[in-house]
Amino acid sequence: MNTPALRNIRSIDLRNGYVDLTHGSGGRAMAQLIRELFARHLGNPYLAQGDDGAVLPAASGRLVLATDAHVVSPLFFPGGDIGCLSVHGTLNDVAVMGAQPLYLTASFILEEGFPLADLDRIVASMAQAARDAGVPVVTGDTKVVERGKVDGIYISTTGLGVLRDGIAVSGAYASVGDAILVSGRMGDHGMAIMSAREGLAFESPIVSDTASLHDMIAGLLDAVPTVHTLRDVTRGGLAATLNEICQQSDVGMLLEENQIPVSSSVAAACELLGLDPLFVANEGKIIVICPPEDASKALQALQGHPLGREASLVGHVQTDPNHFVQMRTGLGGMRIVDWMSGDQLPRIC
Amino acid sequence: MNTPALRNIRSIDLRNGYVDLTHGSGGRAMAQLIRELFARHLGNPYLAQGDDGAVLPAASGRLVLATDAHVVSPLFFPGGDIGCLSVHGTLNDVAVMGAQPLYLTASFILEEGFPLADLDRIVASMAQAARDAGVPVVTGDTKVVERGKVDGIYISTTGLGVLRDGIAVSGAYASVGDAILVSGRMGDHGMAIMSAREGLAFESPIVSDTASLHDMIAGLLDAVPTVHTLRDVTRGGLAATLNEICQQSDVGMLLEENQIPVSSSVAAACELLGLDPLFVANEGKIIVICPPEDASKALQALQGHPLGREASLVGHVQTDPNHFVQMRTGLGGMRIVDWMSGDQLPRIC
Repeated sequence: MNTPALRNIRSIDLRNGYVDLTHGSGGRAMAQLIRELFARHLGNPYLAQGDDGAVLPAASGRLVLATDAHVVSPLFFPGGDIGCLSVHGTLNDVAVMGAQPLYLTASFILEEGFPLADLDRIVASMAQAARDAGVPVVTGDTKVVERGKVDGIYISTTGLGVLRDGIAVSGAYASVGDAILVSGRMGDHGMAIMSAREGLAFESPIVSDTASLHDMIAGLLDAVPTVHTLRDVTRGGLAATLNEICQQSDVGMLLEENQIPVSSSVAAACELLGLDPLFVANEGKIIVICPPEDASKALQALQGHPLGREASLVGHVQTDPNHFVQMRTGLGGMRIVDWMSGDQLPRIC
Repeated sequence: MNTPALRNIRSIDLRNGYVDLTHGSGGRAMAQLIRELFARHLGNPYLAQGDDGAVLPAASGRLVLATDAHVVSPLFFPGGDIGCLSVHGTLNDVAVMGAQPLYLTASFILEEGFPLADLDRIVASMAQAARDAGVPVVTGDTKVVERGKVDGIYISTTGLGVLRDGIAVSGAYASVGDAILVSGRMGDHGMAIMSAREGLAFESPIVSDTASLHDMIAGLLDAVPTVHTLRDVTRGGLAATLNEICQQSDVGMLLEENQIPVSSSVAAACELLGLDPLFVANEGKIIVICPPEDASKALQALQGHPLGREASLVGHVQTDPNHFVQMRTGLGGMRIVDWMSGDQLPRIC
C-alpha cells in the first residue's frame, strides 16, 4: 500500500501565487483555494455546509430570481471593482422587482496565471459588499481556463429574494400620466470606467456609483406602495432603460433635460469623449415611475436616503403608439432619445 | 425633431450572422437577440415577464440553491454540448441535495464574432434539456466581450429547488458501515470530451452521459429516505468525490475495484491516454451512501430507472482518522485512491 504524497500541503501563497489549472480541477488544490480564500472571506453557515448547493430556510411569499454576468474591464476602477459590482448589480436586479434580497450565489471563471493577490482583493470586496447588504453568498463554483481564454476573472451572480406583499412593479406597468423620477446623477459608473480605461484625469475624479439599493428601495416602497415601475439604470443608461419600458408598457415619455442630474465632471468627460450621459451606465441609480399624485412623496422618500439625495422628477409618461422617449432640451427644443444612438461601451459591468 | 433611423430593423441572421459587441450593450440589438434567439427557444411565462428578474410563486419548504459555471471545450461533443450540459450540471447539483429543482437562471458570456448559428444550436439544446427536465429557465443575462477575451461562450446557471420533507443528505453524513453505490459506468463524459479533443476514434464511440438525474433521485429517495449522502460524480471523478466526502464526514472508505462499472471503450481510451477512469468526470452519475441494510433497496431503485440500470454496490464506509479512500484491486492487492493523482483535465464541464 502506497503512502500518498503530500498529505500536508502548504497554505496557498496569497501574496505571490497565481491561479493554475489545478485550482479548477475538482481536486485538492481546488478544495484548498475554496477553504483558504473564498470561504475565509465569504464565510457563513450556508457556505460552510460544504455541499454542491446550499440548503436554506423556507421563505414565505412569492420569490424573485435575478442573475448577471460581470465582465467589467478594468477589474479595479475608481469607486469599486468587479467583486463589489457583482454583488451590487444582482442585488439591485432583485430589489427593483420589489423584493427583499435574501441570498446570493457566485460562480467564478478564472484565468490561469491570474494573481492570487488580485483574486483575494476581489473576493474580499465582494464579501464586504455582501456584509454591508446583509445578504450572504451561500454557494458558489470556480472554473479555471487556460491563459488567454478569459480576461482575468468573470463573475456570475444570482440573487434570490422574496417579494414584498402588496407590491406589483414591472416594466410593463408604466401608465400614461405617471411621473418619472431618477434617484441621482446619471453616468458616474460608466464614466469612471471610461476614464480609468483612457487614463483621463479630471479636476474632481469621477468615481463609480456602484452600491446596493435595496435599502433605499424598501424605504421608497414603504412610503409609496403604488409605484408602477422600478428599474436600475445600467447598460445603455437612462436612454435604453426608458426605451425598454416604453416598449413593455406600450407608452411614450417626455423628459425635461434640465431636470436630469449630471455632475459637471461627468458632463465634461462625456463632452471630451463624444458621449451622451443619458447613454452611459450607472450601478447605483434607479428610475421610479409612479402615479403623479404620489410623485412628491416618492421624491421625498428617495431624497431621505443617503443614496438618493439628488433624486429628481425628470418627466412623465404619455400616450405614444411609436413608444418614443422624447426630451425637451435645455434650450427648449425637442429631441428623441433613441436607444440606437450613443457609442458602444463594452464591458462596463 | 429628428426621426430616429432604423425603427424597423431586419431580423437577426441566424444562419450567417455573428455576435457583435452591440448584442451586449443594453440597446436594441441586445433586445433583439433576446427576443429572436433566447426567448424563442427558452420561452415560458416567467421569462416573458421581460423584467430584470423573474417573479415566481411562493414555494413551500426549505429551499436549495446551486450554481455552476460551464466552460467545456469543445462546445459540441459526442452526446451533448455546453447548452444541455449547463442545464444538467446545475439541476444535478440541486437534486443531490435531496431537492426537487423548480427553476433555472442562465447567464451567458459571448465572444464577439461567435457564430449566431452555433449560439442558436446551443440555446436550442439548453431549451430541450430544460423541457425534458420540466424546469424552466426563468431569467437570464447576456454579456459580450471582445474577440479573444472568452473562448466562444461560457454559461453560468443557477438552480432553485425545494427540499423534500424528511430528507437529510449531506457529504458530512456518511457513517461507518454505510454502503457506497454508484449509479452506472464511470468516466464516459470525461473520455467523450478527451476523445473529441484528441480526435481519437474507437470501435464503439464514447458518448457523454450528460443527463438530468432528479427523476432517478426522486425515485431513490421515495424508496430509501434514509440515504445519508448523494453526490454527482463530476470534476475529479469518483476519486475526488469520495475523498471529499471522507474529509467532510471524518471517515475512510474501502472500494472493490471489480464492482466499479467502466465500459470497455472508456477503459481502453484511459489506457491509451494514461488516465484512470476513477479520476475522470461524469455528468450523469451519482454516488449514493446509505445504511447497509438499505443498500439492496437503493440498488433496486437505481436499477429500476433508465439512467441507473448499471448501478452497482462498490464499497463501504469505514473508520479512518486519515480519511483514506482505499481500494481492493482486481488482482486482490490494496491501494489508496488519492485525489492528488490523475492528470489535470481542464474544461471538462
